[in-house]
Amino acid sequence: KMLRRVLCTVLFMGALPSLAEVSQGHISVVLLGATGDLAKKYLWQGLFQLYMDQVSSGHSFTFHGAALTALEPGQRLMFDVLKKLACPPDEPPNRCAVLKDQFLKLSQYHQLKTAENYTALNREIETLLSQEGLKEAGRIFYFSVPPFAYTEIARHINSSCRPPPGAWLRVVLEKPFGHDLESAQQLAADLTSFFREEEMYRVDHYLGKQAVAHILPFRDQNRQFLDPIWNRHHVERVEIVLKETVDAKGRTSFYEQYGVIRDVLQNHLTEALMFLTMELPANVSRAEEVLQCKLQAFQSLRGLEKNSAVLGQYQAYAGQVQEELQKAQDYISTTPTFAGVLIHSDNLRWEGVPFLLTSGKALDERVGYVRVLFKNRAYCTQSETLRDAGHSQCKAKQIIFYIGHGALNTPAVLVSRNLFRPVMPEGSWREAVGQSDLHIFGQPLCDYYVYRPVKERDAYSVLISNIYHGRKDFFITTENLLASWGFWTPLLDSISHQPLRLYPGGVENQHLLDFEMVSGEVVFTLAEPVELLNPSRLMPSDYRTIQSKFRQSPLVSAWSEDLISQLASDIEETASRTVARSGQFHLALSGGSSPVVLFQRLARHHYAFPWRHTHIWLVDERCVPLTDAESNFLSLHNHLLQSVRVPYFNVHPMPVHLNQRLCVEEDRGTELYAKEIMALVANASFDLVLLGVGTDGHTASLFPRSENGLEGTQTVVLTESPVKPHQRMSLSLPLINKARQVFVLVLGKGKHDITTLLSRVGHEPRKWPISGVSPSSGQLVWYMDYEALLG
Amino acid sequence: KMLRRVLCTVLFMGALPSLAEVSQGHISVVLLGATGDLAKKYLWQGLFQLYMDQVSSGHSFTFHGAALTALEPGQRLMFDVLKKLACPPDEPPNRCAVLKDQFLKLSQYHQLKTAENYTALNREIETLLSQEGLKEAGRIFYFSVPPFAYTEIARHINSSCRPPPGAWLRVVLEKPFGHDLESAQQLAADLTSFFREEEMYRVDHYLGKQAVAHILPFRDQNRQFLDPIWNRHHVERVEIVLKETVDAKGRTSFYEQYGVIRDVLQNHLTEALMFLTMELPANVSRAEEVLQCKLQAFQSLRGLEKNSAVLGQYQAYAGQVQEELQKAQDYISTTPTFAGVLIHSDNLRWEGVPFLLTSGKALDERVGYVRVLFKNRAYCTQSETLRDAGHSQCKAKQIIFYIGHGALNTPAVLVSRNLFRPVMPEGSWREAVGQSDLHIFGQPLCDYYVYRPVKERDAYSVLISNIYHGRKDFFITTENLLASWGFWTPLLDSISHQPLRLYPGGVENQHLLDFEMVSGEVVFTLAEPVELLNPSRLMPSDYRTIQSKFRQSPLVSAWSEDLISQLASDIEETASRTVARSGQFHLALSGGSSPVVLFQRLARHHYAFPWRHTHIWLVDERCVPLTDAESNFLSLHNHLLQSVRVPYFNVHPMPVHLNQRLCVEEDRGTELYAKEIMALVANASFDLVLLGVGTDGHTASLFPRSENGLEGTQTVVLTESPVKPHQRMSLSLPLINKARQVFVLVLGKGKHDITTLLSRVGHEPRKWPISGVSPSSGQLVWYMDYEALLG
Repeated sequence: KMLRRVLCTVLFMGALPSLAEVSQGHISVVLLGATGDLAKKYLWQGLFQLYMDQVSSGHSFTFHGAALTALEPGQRLMFDVLKKLACPPDEPPNRCAVLKDQFLKLSQYHQLKTAENYTALNREIETLLSQEGLKEAGRIFYFSVPPFAYTEIARHINSSCRPPPGAWLRVVLEKPFGHDLESAQQLAADLTSFFREEEMYRVDHYLGKQAVAHILPFRDQNRQFLDPIWNRHHVERVEIVLKETVDAKGRTSFYEQYGVIRDVLQNHLTEALMFLTMELPANVSRAEEVLQCKLQAFQSLRGLEKNSAVLGQYQAYAGQVQEELQKAQDYISTTPTFAGVLIHSDNLRWEGVPFLLTSGKALDERVGYVRVLFKNRAYCTQSETLRDAGHSQCKAKQIIFYIGHGALNTPAVLVSRNLFRPVMPEGSWREAVGQSDLHIFGQPLCDYYVYRPVKERDAYSVLISNIYHGRKDFFITTENLLASWGFWTPLLDSISHQPLRLYPGGVENQHLLDFEMVSGEVVFTLAEPVELLNPSRLMPSDYRTIQSKFRQSPLVSAWSEDLISQLASDIEETASRTVARSGQFHLALSGGSSPVVLFQRLARHHYAFPWRHTHIWLVDERCVPLTDAESNFLSLHNHLLQSVRVPYFNVHPMPVHLNQRLCVEEDRGTELYAKEIMALVANASFDLVLLGVGTDGHTASLFPRSENGLEGTQTVVLTESPVKPHQRMSLSLPLINKARQVFVLVLGKGKHDITTLLSRVGHEPRKWPISGVSPSSGQLVWYMDYEALLG
Repeated sequence: KMLRRVLCTVLFMGALPSLAEVSQGHISVVLLGATGDLAKKYLWQGLFQLYMDQVSSGHSFTFHGAALTALEPGQRLMFDVLKKLACPPDEPPNRCAVLKDQFLKLSQYHQLKTAENYTALNREIETLLSQEGLKEAGRIFYFSVPPFAYTEIARHINSSCRPPPGAWLRVVLEKPFGHDLESAQQLAADLTSFFREEEMYRVDHYLGKQAVAHILPFRDQNRQFLDPIWNRHHVERVEIVLKETVDAKGRTSFYEQYGVIRDVLQNHLTEALMFLTMELPANVSRAEEVLQCKLQAFQSLRGLEKNSAVLGQYQAYAGQVQEELQKAQDYISTTPTFAGVLIHSDNLRWEGVPFLLTSGKALDERVGYVRVLFKNRAYCTQSETLRDAGHSQCKAKQIIFYIGHGALNTPAVLVSRNLFRPVMPEGSWREAVGQSDLHIFGQPLCDYYVYRPVKERDAYSVLISNIYHGRKDFFITTENLLASWGFWTPLLDSISHQPLRLYPGGVENQHLLDFEMVSGEVVFTLAEPVELLNPSRLMPSDYRTIQSKFRQSPLVSAWSEDLISQLASDIEETASRTVARSGQFHLALSGGSSPVVLFQRLARHHYAFPWRHTHIWLVDERCVPLTDAESNFLSLHNHLLQSVRVPYFNVHPMPVHLNQRLCVEEDRGTELYAKEIMALVANASFDLVLLGVGTDGHTASLFPRSENGLEGTQTVVLTESPVKPHQRMSLSLPLINKARQVFVLVLGKGKHDITTLLSRVGHEPRKWPISGVSPSSGQLVWYMDYEALLG
């Protein structure tokens, strides 16, 4: 009835739809959590905006608020919200008043609790439509509810509230979408059992921020200018920043579980990062093409390590948590409220460019921006004073997507005038003119071309409009979501014991949260000013490395990441010393998974390593072609050699593949390798041999009770592994024991048993080949992480 | 007589030397060119300063002005200069007046023209000394004469004016020291026949500039701060700049022969560059250690190419030359009066850091400085307004050795306050205090620690004092000089046809001389504003590449550097296209010298080349070990592979070295290579084969009348070269002709005859193997430089 009345009213108004247009069909919008905070603050206003914008589109609408509250109080609560809906400044007040009146009439409240409630809602919609003789275009279900309620609601919608064939279903989901990769996968799997991918609209409201939403269109429309410079040769660094002045007070029950990385970086800032780094699809408005490019961009991100982030917590936070969550006075929160993260993309376009993602609560200002700073490659011959007169090439060059708040206090796109005058869509962005003595990002505002939206729009209005238009590129697909969690989860895991820098909040923070990049990692610029009474500093991660003895040899022990850093530094030091003495460094490396992190560390952090004078040898190899995924050499190549400059002649893969066959005795690969060693390595005494240990006590490819290699004069041997691929080539124990230094790397809980055993047994190489490692005139050092050592 | 009188006077003055001190011995200073400009302006004043400083040193002095002018007018001219000698501000006027009087008495004029004149001078000195009963300490001969007079004077000094055994001889030489490497070697050889290396003091007066002279001591005294940051990881760029407002008017007879690079860059700016880039010797005041480090630093400089420099000439210059040198109105000068040069050092410390050397006449200001700009790796979390309060890490970090003039108008050392407070020698440098609203290098002066000399000293005073003290590290040794000419001469040769940008002079230059770095080269930032009537633009270098036909195949021709650029671009384009199509690119490269420049070009300018998908094959190889200096592969490795990222597995050196012997048939290297090609290259059809041509018409290692490789089914063959090393391995002509593309590169005058011949003959591979190159279904393109094509 109400709908007919409204439709009639509508028909009497000049600018409003004709019947023919009305025949586009009817759309039912169901807002779940209709009386919650988000709904009150943004969603109803967004739905009202949708109605104002689309009332003449040919679609008719009804709006169904829903919650667990009973009908009568729910209705009251909801209409209290609706009555306060505001008219936007650009809307004629009369028209708005009429439309608001209609909107209220088209809206009703439902209690949605039981299966029956959902069936009833469905029936109501069907009845209404058949009464009005309207075709159904589609239904929107907006989930503004806590995530634990998702599955239940989804089940009900799927079983009782699907629209008839021919009409679409769109369910809109609000974050959090999980807590880490595993929980996100679980949630995604649950939802996928109820909805098809194209039915789900996961909201990241940053994608509705006008400046963020314009990144891709900007790149697309300015290809002519950006094509030559949108790459590592021209971009100096990128900053993606969201600073808040508010703290988490009143929201600690949520915040304490999530923290700043899950709250802001994993979603909002990561999406902005993707818009910047992804390759541009031919058509940027095709959701599927955009998604594919985004997923590729995720693939290129270099994995984060513990030291990729600096973390902080404002001082009042712990007290707020204690109070709001009724925790004891000595309760320690390890939840970061500030994070600065350094991200690298390893594709050819972005290799080496630092992307800094930063966000925090209780900071000195509220501001959000994406800033691309270009390298300055110019030399200006005229003096500085003259230089400032024009738009000198020596000034900083930057492109800034200003999300909002801060000094500008509006969304904006800024492009340095010495870069180019950008192409901007006239209808939606307009050049800001007029004087301003504002300085922004180190330069007066007049150094930039500045564009502001013609009409400033709230993110939720933008998103709701995009849901209506089926613009899936403004939403997070399941693949996108999981790619992002896949990227962030390892960092989240590794920083759980990380100490947090406490900061006072607001302007008091001063330089305390400034951080800088140091060989691919970030660290706070200032040392911790006072040793605050922060028990998290007493956690084991801070014991750092322990030096002691194991089997009468030096033992270095630490958490694995610290251990790898120490080992890499020790190897570099040995290398430098050896090259200084003899001009070359002969390094024999083992295969397996443990050394991979070491290889990466060496490649990424040890720029001064004397690679040009280093010879790389293999300790052991599997009998597969060198380019086979199982090959030790391939792993060494991809994780180390590809990134450093070892001369071709100094690389010595084991000759397991000769005459188109693998490890055949007659091909004499072992002899060949032995000869190569004899020819190049003085006394066949390697400068450094890196070994691992298997759970069975094997080392190199020397397995318990091996016929070859445990003793005798043969230096390189063929052996049999109990696991596939069975055939191996290996340096022999006697050759290993001629080395000047032998480092044994042992990582992980899985090695605890063999470690314990080894600490008790003597020299029994036939039972445990590793126990036979005992350099005759060299030094043996054990590198064991706490998990291997302590279990 | 005069000396005794002066000595007596001296002895009556309190502060002056006792007899015991005088027994240190006597020093005779002979200034050749005593009435010339340099002597008038600087040298006499410097000698007077020496006298003032050293009158109490225990040495006695006489000063002998000499010139070609006859005695009487010469005497008058000289004493006119001496009478005008100034007392320095820090010298008590009374003392100075007395000392000036003494100095005049100790000075006398000599005509030095003939051998007899020199003998007479020598006799005079001996007589004086024996009369006074003085021991001779040494003699200084200061050559302030044109370079053509050097040899003659040197001969006379050597034959007639050497001091007796036990006393030293120091001859001081003023630039120019040659015009290029060859002339410098000639001059050095001439001088070396008269003087020992330690007797020669070549002046580069920049080494006497206080700020320049302090670079090494500064690095030494601040090792603790600089050690971690004085490298490519921290330094963003270095600028070494000498700007002049004056032009060359009145000096064109000198200038027209030299130009700005020879006048300023080859010597002054290069010396500053060396002080910055050289490794620090353990003892920076040991001349020999400093020299060795400097020579090593020269070794590391990457060779300059034509596009390493931008060049200009002020508009009035041509007219000045025409007038002063009586040239015709249509005389065109190709002498640059402005140059900006981009220099790279390829050692581990500096790889990739741009060093910009700039100098010019008729610019907008007079200033000289050496500026080291550090990378900014910090992110400052607090807002900009708060940030400026302290010494934020986000401000620029720089160290500036301010040579003089400009805004500061004094020598100075500036260090950004957010870097470190430098250690400065208290006696000679003092911190400048007090307010100043000066902005310098983009920052207010208060952002720096600023140090000024306690006593500002003219460069020549400093140098004359250093000559007296035998501080050879302030002078240019022969090795140093030749290393510098060796570095600059190739650039000077290659830019002789380079167009010059004309500039109006002074502030009118505006942005016309700004330049920027683009993929390892420099270009002016603004395009040539108008096509000025500048006939040098019509020189052949500007015809760029010509496209036509040679032997029925496409021919690309240009001056060699342009040709190489074109060829490299064409190879990259082929590679990208091929990888896009088939996922890999099989490139077969020839040995020899011509491809070296191509390899370097590819390594340095083609960052987007799909190296990861490229397979590198050899067209031919010499039968030597791969690490032998003669090996084609070694050259390919050092000039290309070492700098790019071709996967190890994709590199295919020819197996010339098997079983510890070279190219023995039974080792079946050719079969091995053929099998490898068959296994990896589809249809054994290379995507691109790069060939050269020998003067005898050979290509690859297929020589005229070769028994192997010109026909038949064998794909890889052993051949015999008429020149050493005789044994070769080569792809066969039939295999080459299966390629999809064959590019033949022909460079240099030496190839003109064979090129002419080839343009006339048909398909006669037995006579001229190159004539047999005719891809059966692929394309052949000739790349020939103008010298090869036109002779």
